Amino acid sequence: MEPIAEVEVVRVAGSRARPDRDIVVVEEPMEIRLDGVPLAVLMRTPGQEADLVLGFALTEGIVLSPTEVTGVTNEGDGDRFRLDLAPGVQVDPEQFRRNAYTTSSCGVCGKASIDAVRVAARPVPLGPRLTFGFLRTLPDLLAGAQPTFAATGGLHGAAIFSSSGDLLAAAEDIGRHNATDKAIGNLARRQWPLGEVILMVSGRVSFEITQKAAVAGIPVVAGVSAASSLAVELARDLGMTLVGFVREQRLVIYSGAGRFTLS
Amino acid sequence: MEPIAEVEVVRVAGSRARPDRDIVVVEEPMEIRLDGVPLAVLMRTPGQEADLVLGFALTEGIVLSPTEVTGVTNEGDGDRFRLDLAPGVQVDPEQFRRNAYTTSSCGVCGKASIDAVRVAARPVPLGPRLTFGFLRTLPDLLAGAQPTFAATGGLHGAAIFSSSGDLLAAAEDIGRHNATDKAIGNLARRQWPLGEVILMVSGRVSFEITQKAAVAGIPVVAGVSAASSLAVELARDLGMTLVGFVREQRLVIYSGAGRFTLS
Repeated sequence: MEPIAEVEVVRVAGSRARPDRDIVVVEEPMEIRLDGVPLAVLMRTPGQEADLVLGFALTEGIVLSPTEVTGVTNEGDGDRFRLDLAPGVQVDPEQFRRNAYTTSSCGVCGKASIDAVRVAARPVPLGPRLTFGFLRTLPDLLAGAQPTFAATGGLHGAAIFSSSGDLLAAAEDIGRHNATDKAIGNLARRQWPLGEVILMVSGRVSFEITQKAAVAGIPVVAGVSAASSLAVELARDLGMTLVGFVREQRLVIYSGAGRFTLS
Repeated sequence: MEPIAEVEVVRVAGSRARPDRDIVVVEEPMEIRLDGVPLAVLMRTPGQEADLVLGFALTEGIVLSPTEVTGVTNEGDGDRFRLDLAPGVQVDPEQFRRNAYTTSSCGVCGKASIDAVRVAARPVPLGPRLTFGFLRTLPDLLAGAQPTFAATGGLHGAAIFSSSGDLLAAAEDIGRHNATDKAIGNLARRQWPLGEVILMVSGRVSFEITQKAAVAGIPVVAGVSAASSLAVELARDLGMTLVGFVREQRLVIYSGAGRFTLS
């Protein structure tokens, strides 16, 4: 299945309407299964499914490293994928349903959510040294890695960069969290752990994105737009660098300014 | 709790960095309970919780009309809310967990998702007659109803309009689906059914937004940005009008062009 589809539309300009065709982003549900048990249903844009499943498994704490996953197998109908674990790796599917740790019995509040991530996250490494100028080159690189967004205007992008600015992995999806999982899953096949990389997302930086980076051990998260309060709290709590509004001439450092040097 | 919070940041312009304060959108988990059973945990922006819970109950098909809900009660800690049902109204919490119908046993695919919504949705009414010019006035009205977005750049907005352009309800939230539920819940206290109104959202129109409108019986959905493939399919299948890229001089009609007149 393609990530984009052509649909018939009526295009209106001024007071004139004419039939036309337009490109839309494909959105389709997908199920991740483990030992025959449904683990999660994601609304995602088709493409990079094996990356998405591996990334999801890593960022949700289902597995601790890519070596615990032997493969991702499509089960027949194109939208159902099985996570295959290495011999001896034990996972309780019930324990890892989506949002599991925000429903923990210690209460529903931001503090409890942060505590839960702290348990699931690996220790955040010192990570890369950053400069303002370097960070500000990333949005253009991210935009260059978003071909479908260019066609449709309807997709989120995520990209992972080395500290020298190499684009290590990139993905697009109708969900920002899926794009993040796809990029992380893609890179994790070739490189692990991810303690020296920078995750950049195309829009806002929410708690969920920061949480995924934390659980995957990525120390630096940057966004083109604003961060949320809980994302900032989590990043500070774990010692991550969180940067927002990364633009050509400016940026806002919410957390972890110590990773920046002036040269 | 406030919808926005002030945080200390380091603001970088060119090569200069200075400590500053910035406004961020608050993101906090919230639990909805029914008969003591957790129904859903939403990451939401504080504010309009009673509207959010009522709207969520209506758009997820938990209740069929606002008269089935007698109240929304905060349970102690500020982030846990109880949905109180009218005597005789029976709901099985297990049946209505989030994404329940995308995990239906008939398979995980867009077709199955649409079929599930068709069962849950009320018949889509003929609804309002629309003109191009009228639709194009809505984005400005929506923007005017987004005070927090103006302060932070980090929020989605949803607004509901009458066919004569009156702003009936508006809401903001870090989640577009929550903003939609808040606006619908707010209006549902005063007006029901919603067969003559137009839902407008600030960004993309996803399947989830279209599904929520369908289940609430709203016939017209408009977005400032693109629609997804599955949103278009659902709107066509149910006879809804779906419009995207609503801007000052143009718009794209994905579905239900028949509701437009030229005068």
